[in-house]
Amino acid sequence: MQQAIAILDSGVGGLTVVKEVMRQLPQEKIIYFGDTARTPYGPRTSEEVVQFTRQIVDYLVQFQPKMIVIACNTATAVALEDIRSRVNVPVVGVIHPGARAAIKATQTGVVGVIGTDGTIRSGAYLNALKQISPAIQVVSRSCPDFVPMVEKGLFRSPETHKVVEKSLEGLSFPPMDCLILGCTHYPFLADTIGEVMGPNVSLISSADETAREISTILYQTNHLARSHETPIHQFFCSGEPAMFRHIAQDWLGEQIMLQPVVWQSPSIT
Amino acid sequence: MQQAIAILDSGVGGLTVVKEVMRQLPQEKIIYFGDTARTPYGPRTSEEVVQFTRQIVDYLVQFQPKMIVIACNTATAVALEDIRSRVNVPVVGVIHPGARAAIKATQTGVVGVIGTDGTIRSGAYLNALKQISPAIQVVSRSCPDFVPMVEKGLFRSPETHKVVEKSLEGLSFPPMDCLILGCTHYPFLADTIGEVMGPNVSLISSADETAREISTILYQTNHLARSHETPIHQFFCSGEPAMFRHIAQDWLGEQIMLQPVVWQSPSIT
Repeated sequence: MQQAIAILDSGVGGLTVVKEVMRQLPQEKIIYFGDTARTPYGPRTSEEVVQFTRQIVDYLVQFQPKMIVIACNTATAVALEDIRSRVNVPVVGVIHPGARAAIKATQTGVVGVIGTDGTIRSGAYLNALKQISPAIQVVSRSCPDFVPMVEKGLFRSPETHKVVEKSLEGLSFPPMDCLILGCTHYPFLADTIGEVMGPNVSLISSADETAREISTILYQTNHLARSHETPIHQFFCSGEPAMFRHIAQDWLGEQIMLQPVVWQSPSIT
Repeated sequence: MQQAIAILDSGVGGLTVVKEVMRQLPQEKIIYFGDTARTPYGPRTSEEVVQFTRQIVDYLVQFQPKMIVIACNTATAVALEDIRSRVNVPVVGVIHPGARAAIKATQTGVVGVIGTDGTIRSGAYLNALKQISPAIQVVSRSCPDFVPMVEKGLFRSPETHKVVEKSLEGLSFPPMDCLILGCTHYPFLADTIGEVMGPNVSLISSADETAREISTILYQTNHLARSHETPIHQFFCSGEPAMFRHIAQDWLGEQIMLQPVVWQSPSIT
Protein backbone atom coordinates (compact mmCIF):
# COMPACT_ATOMS: atom_id res chain seq x y z
CA MET A 1 0.00 0.00 0.00
CA GLN A 2 1.27 3.44 -0.88
CA GLN A 3 2.06 5.66 2.12
CA ALA A 4 0.23 8.97 1.93
CA ILE A 5 1.15 12.59 2.53
CA ALA A 6 -1.13 13.85 5.34
CA ILE A 7 -2.21 17.47 4.89
CA LEU A 8 -4.17 19.41 7.50
CA ASP A 9 -5.76 22.82 7.75
CA SER A 10 -8.29 24.78 9.78
CA GLY A 11 -10.74 24.40 6.87
CA VAL A 12 -10.61 24.57 3.09
CA GLY A 13 -7.42 26.69 2.79
CA GLY A 14 -5.10 23.70 2.68
CA LEU A 15 -6.88 22.60 -0.50
CA THR A 16 -4.64 25.10 -2.29
CA VAL A 17 -1.69 22.97 -1.16
CA VAL A 18 -3.58 19.79 -2.18
CA LYS A 19 -4.19 21.14 -5.68
CA GLU A 20 -0.51 21.96 -6.13
CA VAL A 21 0.64 18.60 -4.74
CA MET A 22 -1.75 16.88 -7.18
CA ARG A 23 -0.26 18.94 -10.02
CA GLN A 24 3.42 18.82 -9.04
CA LEU A 25 3.44 15.29 -7.57
CA PRO A 26 0.74 13.42 -9.50
CA GLN A 27 1.77 10.00 -8.16
CA GLU A 28 1.47 10.90 -4.47
CA LYS A 29 -1.52 9.81 -2.38
CA ILE A 30 -3.02 12.53 -0.16
CA ILE A 31 -5.03 12.34 3.05
CA TYR A 32 -6.56 15.70 3.92
CA PHE A 33 -8.14 16.97 7.12
CA GLY A 34 -10.06 20.26 7.22
CA ASP A 35 -11.12 21.34 10.72
CA THR A 36 -14.17 23.16 9.37
CA ALA A 37 -16.05 22.84 12.69
CA ARG A 38 -13.54 25.16 14.35
CA THR A 39 -12.46 27.45 11.49
CA PRO A 40 -11.09 30.14 11.48
CA TYR A 41 -7.96 29.56 13.57
CA GLY A 42 -6.67 33.13 13.02
CA PRO A 43 -8.43 34.79 16.00
CA ARG A 44 -7.82 31.87 18.44
CA THR A 45 -5.17 31.72 21.16
CA SER A 46 -1.90 29.89 20.51
CA GLU A 47 -2.82 27.28 23.12
CA GLU A 48 -6.06 26.44 21.34
CA VAL A 49 -4.37 26.19 17.94
CA VAL A 50 -1.64 23.91 19.33
CA GLN A 51 -4.27 21.70 20.99
CA PHE A 52 -6.39 21.48 17.82
CA THR A 53 -3.37 20.72 15.64
CA ARG A 54 -2.25 17.94 18.00
CA GLN A 55 -5.73 16.44 17.89
CA ILE A 56 -5.79 16.39 14.08
CA VAL A 57 -2.30 14.90 13.90
CA ASP A 58 -3.33 12.21 16.40
CA TYR A 59 -6.25 11.40 14.08
CA LEU A 60 -4.07 11.34 10.94
CA VAL A 61 -1.26 9.14 12.28
CA GLN A 62 -3.65 6.13 12.22
CA PHE A 63 -3.08 6.16 8.42
CA GLN A 64 0.72 5.93 8.89
CA PRO A 65 1.55 8.84 6.59
CA LYS A 66 5.13 9.31 5.36
CA MET A 67 4.97 13.07 5.91
CA ILE A 68 2.75 15.57 7.73
CA VAL A 69 2.06 18.93 6.14
CA ILE A 70 0.63 21.69 8.33
CA ALA A 71 -1.08 23.52 5.48
CA CYS A 72 -2.26 26.34 7.72
CA ASN A 73 -0.04 29.34 8.38
CA THR A 74 -1.61 30.05 11.77
CA ALA A 75 -0.98 26.48 12.95
CA THR A 76 2.52 26.43 11.42
CA ALA A 77 3.38 29.63 13.26
CA VAL A 78 2.55 28.22 16.70
CA ALA A 79 2.54 24.40 16.45
CA LEU A 80 5.21 23.32 13.93
CA GLU A 81 7.99 22.63 16.44
CA ASP A 82 5.55 20.96 18.85
CA ILE A 83 4.32 18.55 16.16
CA ARG A 84 7.90 17.88 15.00
CA SER A 85 8.77 16.72 18.49
CA ARG A 86 5.76 14.36 18.61
CA VAL A 87 6.04 12.35 15.37
CA ASN A 88 8.87 10.50 13.67
CA VAL A 89 8.17 11.49 10.06
CA PRO A 90 9.13 14.79 8.37
CA VAL A 91 6.78 17.66 9.28
CA VAL A 92 6.52 20.48 6.77
CA GLY A 93 4.93 23.86 7.47
CA VAL A 94 3.84 26.54 5.02
CA ILE A 95 5.77 29.54 6.34
CA HIS A 96 9.40 28.81 5.49
CA PRO A 97 8.71 27.72 1.87
CA GLY A 98 7.08 31.08 1.14
CA ALA A 99 9.88 32.93 2.95
CA ARG A 100 12.56 31.14 0.93
CA ALA A 101 10.72 31.79 -2.34
CA ALA A 102 10.47 35.50 -1.48
CA ILE A 103 14.19 35.68 -0.71
CA LYS A 104 14.90 34.04 -4.07
CA ALA A 105 12.46 36.33 -5.93
CA THR A 106 13.08 39.78 -4.45
CA GLN A 107 15.42 42.17 -6.23
CA THR A 108 14.55 45.27 -4.15
CA GLY A 109 14.90 43.52 -0.79
CA VAL A 110 11.43 44.66 0.31
CA VAL A 111 8.98 41.80 0.86
CA GLY A 112 5.31 42.08 1.81
CA VAL A 113 3.42 39.51 3.87
CA ILE A 114 -0.32 39.22 4.40
CA GLY A 115 -1.90 36.68 6.74
CA THR A 116 -4.36 36.12 9.54
CA ASP A 117 -4.17 37.98 12.82
CA GLY A 118 -2.59 34.95 14.46
CA THR A 119 0.09 34.53 11.82
CA ILE A 120 1.06 38.21 11.65
CA ARG A 121 0.95 38.59 15.46
CA SER A 122 3.32 35.61 15.84
CA GLY A 123 5.98 37.35 13.71
CA ALA A 124 6.69 33.97 12.13
CA TYR A 125 7.33 35.31 8.61
CA LEU A 126 9.44 38.18 9.88
CA ASN A 127 11.52 35.72 11.91
CA ALA A 128 11.83 33.21 9.05
CA LEU A 129 12.92 35.92 6.61
CA LYS A 130 15.33 37.64 9.02
CA GLN A 131 16.84 34.35 10.21
CA ILE A 132 18.00 33.65 6.66
CA SER A 133 18.56 37.18 5.33
CA PRO A 134 18.88 39.83 8.07
CA ALA A 135 18.99 42.80 5.67
CA ILE A 136 15.60 42.10 4.14
CA GLN A 137 12.83 44.62 4.80
CA VAL A 138 9.43 43.15 5.67
CA VAL A 139 6.04 44.87 5.49
CA SER A 140 3.28 42.84 7.18
CA ARG A 141 -0.46 43.21 7.38
CA SER A 142 -3.23 41.01 8.73
CA CYS A 143 -6.36 40.60 6.60
CA PRO A 144 -8.93 39.10 9.00
CA ASP A 145 -11.81 39.35 6.51
CA PHE A 146 -10.31 37.01 3.92
CA VAL A 147 -10.65 33.55 5.55
CA PRO A 148 -14.35 33.83 6.53
CA MET A 149 -15.09 34.97 2.97
CA VAL A 150 -13.31 31.95 1.44
CA GLU A 151 -14.83 29.46 3.92
CA LYS A 152 -18.26 30.66 2.77
CA GLY A 153 -17.27 30.05 -0.84
CA LEU A 154 -17.48 33.76 -1.64
CA PHE A 155 -14.19 33.99 -3.51
CA ARG A 156 -15.75 35.14 -6.78
CA SER A 157 -18.52 37.38 -5.38
CA PRO A 158 -18.85 41.03 -6.44
CA GLU A 159 -18.05 42.11 -2.88
CA THR A 160 -14.71 40.31 -2.85
CA HIS A 161 -12.93 43.02 -4.82
CA LYS A 162 -14.13 45.73 -2.42
CA VAL A 163 -13.02 43.82 0.67
CA VAL A 164 -9.61 42.98 -0.83
CA GLU A 165 -9.06 46.55 -2.00
CA LYS A 166 -9.90 47.97 1.42
CA SER A 167 -7.74 45.41 3.24
CA LEU A 168 -4.65 46.09 1.10
CA GLU A 169 -4.96 49.90 0.89
CA GLY A 170 -1.58 51.61 1.02
CA LEU A 171 0.29 48.34 1.55
CA SER A 172 2.61 48.69 -1.42
CA PHE A 173 4.58 51.54 0.17
CA PRO A 174 7.56 51.13 0.74
CA PRO A 175 7.84 49.67 -2.76
CA MET A 176 7.89 45.90 -2.45
CA ASP A 177 8.42 43.66 -5.47
CA CYS A 178 6.83 40.54 -4.02
CA LEU A 179 3.99 39.76 -1.66
CA ILE A 180 3.71 36.49 0.24
CA LEU A 181 0.17 35.13 0.45
CA GLY A 182 0.83 34.02 4.01
CA CYS A 183 -2.38 32.06 4.43
CA THR A 184 -3.32 28.99 2.43
CA HIS A 185 -6.81 30.41 1.93
CA TYR A 186 -5.50 33.40 -0.01
CA PRO A 187 -4.72 31.72 -3.36
CA PHE A 188 -8.53 31.44 -3.71
CA LEU A 189 -8.41 35.27 -3.90
CA ALA A 190 -5.16 35.49 -5.90
CA ASP A 191 -6.69 36.99 -9.06
CA THR A 192 -8.27 39.81 -7.09
CA ILE A 193 -5.19 40.40 -4.92
CA GLY A 194 -3.07 40.55 -8.08
CA GLU A 195 -5.37 43.14 -9.66
CA VAL A 196 -5.27 45.30 -6.53
CA MET A 197 -1.46 45.09 -6.06
CA GLY A 198 -0.66 45.73 -9.73
CA PRO A 199 1.82 44.18 -12.15
CA ASN A 200 5.00 45.22 -10.31
CA VAL A 201 4.32 43.00 -7.31
CA SER A 202 4.66 39.27 -7.87
CA LEU A 203 2.51 37.09 -5.63
CA ILE A 204 4.15 34.21 -3.79
CA SER A 205 1.76 31.44 -2.87
CA SER A 206 2.80 29.55 0.22
CA ALA A 207 0.71 26.69 -1.23
CA ASP A 208 2.68 26.39 -4.48
CA GLU A 209 6.00 26.77 -2.70
CA THR A 210 5.12 24.21 -0.06
CA ALA A 211 4.23 21.65 -2.74
CA ARG A 212 7.63 22.26 -4.32
CA GLU A 213 9.40 21.74 -0.97
CA ILE A 214 7.37 18.61 -0.22
CA SER A 215 8.86 17.31 -3.48
CA THR A 216 12.37 18.31 -2.37
CA ILE A 217 12.10 16.63 1.01
CA LEU A 218 10.47 13.43 -0.29
CA TYR A 219 13.32 13.15 -2.80
CA GLN A 220 16.06 13.95 -0.29
CA THR A 221 14.70 11.39 2.21
CA ASN A 222 14.11 8.81 -0.53
CA HIS A 223 10.32 8.75 -0.04
CA LEU A 224 8.96 9.67 -3.47
CA ALA A 225 6.09 7.39 -4.57
CA ARG A 226 7.33 4.49 -6.66
CA SER A 227 3.91 3.30 -7.81
CA HIS A 228 2.58 4.38 -11.18
CA GLU A 229 -1.02 3.70 -10.18
CA THR A 230 -3.31 6.71 -9.96
CA PRO A 231 -3.59 7.51 -6.25
CA ILE A 232 -7.00 7.67 -4.56
CA HIS A 233 -7.10 10.61 -2.17
CA GLN A 234 -9.16 10.75 1.02
CA PHE A 235 -10.70 13.84 2.60
CA PHE A 236 -12.00 14.39 6.12
CA CYS A 237 -13.74 17.40 7.61
CA SER A 238 -14.98 18.08 11.12
CA GLY A 239 -17.88 20.35 10.15
CA GLU A 240 -20.84 20.22 7.85
CA PRO A 241 -19.69 18.31 4.76
CA ALA A 242 -21.86 19.92 2.03
CA MET A 243 -20.02 23.25 1.87
CA PHE A 244 -16.62 21.52 2.14
CA ARG A 245 -17.51 19.17 -0.71
CA HIS A 246 -18.78 22.05 -2.83
CA ILE A 247 -15.65 24.16 -2.39
CA ALA A 248 -13.24 21.21 -2.73
CA GLN A 249 -14.80 19.88 -5.92
CA ASP A 250 -15.01 23.35 -7.43
CA TRP A 251 -11.36 24.13 -6.59
CA LEU A 252 -9.87 20.74 -7.47
CA GLY A 253 -12.08 20.18 -10.51
CA GLU A 254 -12.92 16.60 -9.58
CA GLN A 255 -15.16 14.49 -7.33
CA ILE A 256 -13.73 13.75 -3.89
CA MET A 257 -14.08 10.91 -1.38
CA LEU A 258 -15.18 12.77 1.78
CA GLN A 259 -15.86 11.51 5.28
CA PRO A 260 -17.14 13.74 8.11
CA VAL A 261 -15.44 13.40 11.51
CA VAL A 262 -17.24 14.35 14.71
CA TRP A 263 -14.90 15.47 17.51
CA GLN A 264 -15.75 13.39 20.57
CA SER A 265 -14.74 15.92 23.19
CA PRO A 266 -17.07 18.92 23.19
CA SER A 267 -14.61 20.84 25.38
CA ILE A 268 -12.26 21.39 22.46
CA THR A 269 -14.69 22.47 19.78
CA MET B 1 33.88 28.15 13.99
CA GLN B 2 31.10 28.22 11.44
CA GLN B 3 30.72 25.02 9.38
CA ALA B 4 30.81 25.72 5.67
CA ILE B 5 28.84 24.58 2.65
CA ALA B 6 31.30 22.87 0.30
CA ILE B 7 30.57 23.48 -3.37
CA LEU B 8 32.44 21.78 -6.21
CA ASP B 9 32.48 21.96 -9.97
CA SER B 10 34.58 21.02 -12.98
CA GLY B 11 35.61 24.67 -13.27
CA VAL B 12 33.95 28.07 -12.96
CA GLY B 13 30.35 26.92 -13.61
CA GLY B 14 29.60 26.28 -9.95
CA LEU B 15 30.26 29.97 -9.29
CA THR B 16 26.69 30.56 -10.50
CA VAL B 17 25.57 28.47 -7.52
CA VAL B 18 28.00 30.34 -5.24
CA LYS B 19 26.59 33.70 -6.34
CA GLU B 20 23.03 32.59 -5.58
CA VAL B 21 23.99 31.06 -2.23
CA MET B 22 25.70 34.35 -1.31
CA ARG B 23 22.52 36.22 -2.29
CA GLN B 24 19.91 33.85 -0.84
CA LEU B 25 21.90 32.72 2.23
CA PRO B 26 24.14 35.68 3.08
CA GLN B 27 25.19 34.25 6.45
CA GLU B 28 26.52 30.95 5.11
CA LYS B 29 30.24 30.33 4.70
CA ILE B 30 31.26 28.73 1.38
CA ILE B 31 34.25 26.62 0.41
CA TYR B 32 34.51 26.22 -3.36
CA PHE B 33 36.56 23.87 -5.49
CA GLY B 34 36.86 24.34 -9.25
CA ASP B 35 38.68 21.52 -11.04
CA THR B 36 39.93 23.83 -13.76
CA ALA B 37 42.91 21.58 -14.56
CA ARG B 38 40.53 18.93 -15.88
CA THR B 39 37.62 20.95 -17.24
CA PRO B 40 35.41 20.26 -19.17
CA TYR B 41 33.86 17.13 -17.64
CA GLY B 42 31.17 16.90 -20.34
CA PRO B 43 33.10 14.79 -22.86
CA ARG B 44 34.73 12.51 -20.23
CA THR B 45 33.66 8.95 -19.35
CA SER B 46 31.43 8.35 -16.32
CA GLU B 47 34.27 6.48 -14.60
CA GLU B 48 36.58 9.45 -14.91
CA VAL B 49 33.96 11.89 -13.63
CA VAL B 50 33.16 9.68 -10.62
CA GLN B 51 36.88 9.35 -9.84
CA PHE B 52 37.48 13.11 -10.11
CA THR B 53 34.44 13.94 -7.98
CA ARG B 54 35.56 11.50 -5.27
CA GLN B 55 38.99 13.09 -5.25
CA ILE B 56 37.57 16.60 -4.82
CA VAL B 57 35.21 15.45 -2.06
CA ASP B 58 38.14 13.75 -0.29
CA TYR B 59 39.94 17.09 -0.43
CA LEU B 60 36.95 19.09 0.83
CA VAL B 61 36.04 16.86 3.80
CA GLN B 62 39.20 18.08 5.60
CA PHE B 63 37.24 21.31 6.22
CA GLN B 64 34.36 19.38 7.88
CA PRO B 65 31.59 20.95 5.77
CA LYS B 66 27.97 20.60 6.89
CA MET B 67 26.81 19.92 3.33
CA ILE B 68 28.36 19.01 -0.01
CA VAL B 69 26.94 20.52 -3.18
CA ILE B 70 27.87 18.94 -6.50
CA ALA B 71 27.43 22.12 -8.52
CA CYS B 72 28.15 20.38 -11.81
CA ASN B 73 25.36 18.70 -13.75
CA THR B 74 27.71 16.20 -15.40
CA ALA B 75 29.08 15.08 -12.02
CA THR B 76 25.61 15.07 -10.43
CA ALA B 77 24.34 12.84 -13.23
CA VAL B 78 26.93 10.12 -12.66
CA ALA B 79 28.37 10.60 -9.14
CA LEU B 80 25.62 11.89 -6.81
CA GLU B 81 24.59 8.51 -5.39
CA ASP B 82 28.21 7.40 -5.08
CA ILE B 83 29.15 10.49 -3.06
CA ARG B 84 26.00 10.15 -0.90
CA SER B 85 27.12 6.68 0.11
CA ARG B 86 30.61 7.93 1.05
CA VAL B 87 29.91 10.89 3.35
CA ASN B 88 27.66 11.44 6.35
CA VAL B 89 26.41 14.97 5.56
CA PRO B 90 23.64 15.90 3.12
CA VAL B 91 24.77 15.85 -0.51
CA VAL B 92 22.88 18.07 -2.92
CA GLY B 93 23.10 17.86 -6.69
CA VAL B 94 21.97 20.38 -9.30
CA ILE B 95 19.68 18.21 -11.44
CA HIS B 96 16.62 17.57 -9.25
CA PRO B 97 16.21 21.22 -8.12
CA GLY B 98 15.93 22.33 -11.76
CA ALA B 99 13.58 19.44 -12.54
CA ARG B 100 11.28 20.32 -9.62
CA ALA B 101 11.26 24.00 -10.57
CA ALA B 102 10.32 23.09 -14.16
CA ILE B 103 7.46 20.88 -12.95
CA LYS B 104 6.23 23.78 -10.83
CA ALA B 105 6.60 26.31 -13.66
CA THR B 106 5.27 24.49 -16.71
CA GLN B 107 1.69 25.04 -17.80
CA THR B 108 1.98 23.29 -21.19
CA GLY B 109 3.70 20.18 -19.82
CA VAL B 110 6.54 20.51 -22.34
CA VAL B 111 9.94 21.17 -20.74
CA GLY B 112 13.22 21.77 -22.55
CA VAL B 113 16.64 20.79 -21.17
CA ILE B 114 20.06 21.84 -22.45
CA GLY B 115 23.29 20.51 -21.00
CA THR B 116 26.67 18.99 -21.76
CA ASP B 117 27.04 15.79 -23.77
CA GLY B 118 27.59 13.84 -20.55
CA THR B 119 24.50 15.20 -18.82
CA ILE B 120 22.17 14.74 -21.80
CA ARG B 121 23.59 11.29 -22.62
CA SER B 122 22.96 10.17 -19.00
CA GLY B 123 19.23 10.93 -19.32
CA ALA B 124 19.39 12.29 -15.77
CA TYR B 125 16.94 15.17 -16.33
CA LEU B 126 14.55 12.97 -18.28
CA ASN B 127 14.61 10.43 -15.45
CA ALA B 128 14.23 13.06 -12.72
CA LEU B 129 11.28 14.70 -14.49
CA LYS B 130 9.54 11.41 -15.39
CA GLN B 131 10.10 9.93 -11.93
CA ILE B 132 8.01 12.73 -10.44
CA SER B 133 5.63 13.52 -13.29
CA PRO B 134 5.37 10.72 -15.89
CA ALA B 135 3.14 12.68 -18.30
CA ILE B 136 5.63 15.49 -18.79
CA GLN B 137 7.17 15.85 -22.26
CA VAL B 138 10.90 16.50 -22.34
CA VAL B 139 12.95 17.94 -25.23
CA SER B 140 16.71 17.63 -24.64
CA ARG B 141 19.74 18.93 -26.47
CA SER B 142 23.44 18.96 -25.70
CA CYS B 143 25.36 22.17 -26.30
CA PRO B 144 29.03 21.11 -26.22
CA ASP B 145 30.34 24.52 -27.29
CA PHE B 146 29.04 26.44 -24.28
CA VAL B 147 31.35 25.30 -21.44
CA PRO B 148 34.67 25.87 -23.24
CA MET B 149 33.42 29.37 -24.18
CA VAL B 150 32.58 30.22 -20.55
CA GLU B 151 35.81 28.71 -19.15
CA LYS B 152 37.73 31.07 -21.47
CA GLY B 153 35.74 34.01 -20.12
CA LEU B 154 34.11 34.59 -23.53
CA PHE B 155 30.55 34.96 -22.23
CA ARG B 156 30.12 38.49 -23.54
CA SER B 157 32.04 38.19 -26.80
CA PRO B 158 30.45 39.09 -30.15
CA GLU B 159 30.71 35.44 -31.22
CA THR B 160 28.69 34.18 -28.27
CA HIS B 161 25.36 35.11 -29.83
CA LYS B 162 26.18 33.23 -33.04
CA VAL B 163 27.25 30.07 -31.22
CA VAL B 164 24.19 30.14 -28.94
CA GLU B 165 21.82 30.76 -31.86
CA LYS B 166 23.28 27.88 -33.86
CA SER B 167 23.23 25.51 -30.87
CA LEU B 168 19.57 26.17 -30.04
CA GLU B 169 18.23 26.27 -33.61
CA GLY B 170 14.78 24.66 -33.89
CA LEU B 171 14.77 23.63 -30.22
CA SER B 172 11.53 25.39 -29.30
CA PHE B 173 9.38 22.98 -31.32
CA PRO B 174 7.29 21.28 -29.83
CA PRO B 175 6.31 24.47 -27.99
CA MET B 176 7.90 24.38 -24.54
CA ASP B 177 7.17 27.06 -21.95
CA CYS B 178 10.32 26.57 -19.91
CA LEU B 179 13.91 25.59 -20.58
CA ILE B 180 16.19 24.18 -17.91
CA LEU B 181 19.75 25.50 -18.09
CA GLY B 182 21.04 22.04 -17.20
CA CYS B 183 24.63 23.08 -16.72
CA THR B 184 25.87 25.45 -14.05
CA HIS B 185 28.00 27.24 -16.66
CA TYR B 186 24.95 28.31 -18.67
CA PRO B 187 23.69 31.17 -16.44
CA PHE B 188 26.81 33.04 -17.66
CA LEU B 189 25.09 32.93 -21.08
CA ALA B 190 21.53 33.43 -19.78
CA ASP B 191 20.94 36.83 -21.41
CA THR B 192 21.89 35.50 -24.83
CA ILE B 193 19.95 32.24 -24.38
CA GLY B 194 16.90 34.27 -23.34
CA GLU B 195 17.14 36.47 -26.43
CA VAL B 196 17.41 33.44 -28.71
CA MET B 197 14.53 31.50 -27.09
CA GLY B 198 12.19 34.49 -26.94
CA PRO B 199 9.81 35.79 -24.28
CA ASN B 200 7.48 32.76 -24.18
CA VAL B 201 10.12 30.43 -22.76
CA SER B 202 11.12 31.04 -19.16
CA LEU B 203 14.64 29.98 -18.27
CA ILE B 204 15.17 27.83 -15.20
CA SER B 205 18.62 28.11 -13.72
CA SER B 206 19.74 24.99 -11.93
CA ALA B 207 22.05 27.32 -9.98
CA ASP B 208 19.25 29.52 -8.57
CA GLU B 209 17.05 26.54 -7.80
CA THR B 210 19.86 24.64 -6.11
CA ALA B 211 20.56 27.60 -3.81
CA ARG B 212 16.88 27.64 -2.87
CA GLU B 213 16.95 23.91 -2.08
CA ILE B 214 20.18 24.23 -0.09
CA SER B 215 18.21 26.67 2.05
CA THR B 216 15.32 24.18 2.39
CA ILE B 217 17.55 21.31 3.43
CA LEU B 218 19.68 23.36 5.86
CA TYR B 219 16.46 24.51 7.52
CA GLN B 220 14.84 21.07 7.58
CA THR B 221 17.98 19.49 9.10
CA ASN B 222 18.44 22.40 11.52
CA HIS B 223 21.79 23.48 10.05
CA LEU B 224 21.21 27.10 9.06
CA ALA B 225 24.07 29.40 10.14
CA ARG B 226 23.41 30.98 13.52
CA SER B 227 26.26 33.49 13.37
CA HIS B 228 25.61 37.03 12.25
CA GLU B 229 29.27 37.61 11.34
CA THR B 230 30.02 38.15 7.66
CA PRO B 231 31.38 34.81 6.43
CA ILE B 232 34.79 34.63 4.74
CA HIS B 233 34.61 32.31 1.76
CA GLN B 234 37.52 30.22 0.46
CA PHE B 235 38.16 29.21 -3.14
CA PHE B 236 40.41 26.49 -4.53
CA CYS B 237 41.21 25.62 -8.14
CA SER B 238 43.34 22.88 -9.63
CA GLY B 239 44.45 24.80 -12.73
CA GLU B 240 46.03 28.11 -13.55
CA PRO B 241 44.63 30.58 -10.97
CA ALA B 242 44.72 33.85 -12.98
CA MET B 243 41.80 33.06 -15.29
CA PHE B 244 39.77 31.54 -12.41
CA ARG B 245 40.33 34.65 -10.30
CA HIS B 246 39.42 36.93 -13.20
CA ILE B 247 36.13 35.12 -13.94
CA ALA B 248 35.19 34.65 -10.27
CA GLN B 249 35.77 38.28 -9.29
CA ASP B 250 33.95 39.53 -12.39
CA TRP B 251 30.95 37.24 -11.77
CA LEU B 252 30.74 37.65 -7.99
CA GLY B 253 31.60 41.35 -8.00
CA GLU B 254 34.11 41.07 -5.16
CA GLN B 255 37.68 40.04 -4.36
CA ILE B 256 38.16 36.35 -3.52
CA MET B 257 40.59 34.39 -1.36
CA LEU B 258 41.99 31.83 -3.83
CA GLN B 259 44.42 28.99 -3.33
CA PRO B 260 45.69 26.78 -6.16
CA VAL B 261 45.76 23.03 -5.57
CA VAL B 262 48.11 20.75 -7.50
CA TRP B 263 46.81 17.20 -7.89
CA GLN B 264 49.58 14.88 -6.67
CA SER B 265 48.75 11.91 -8.84
CA PRO B 266 49.42 12.67 -12.52
CA SER B 267 47.47 9.56 -13.54
CA ILE B 268 44.18 11.25 -12.80
CA THR B 269 44.68 14.62 -14.45
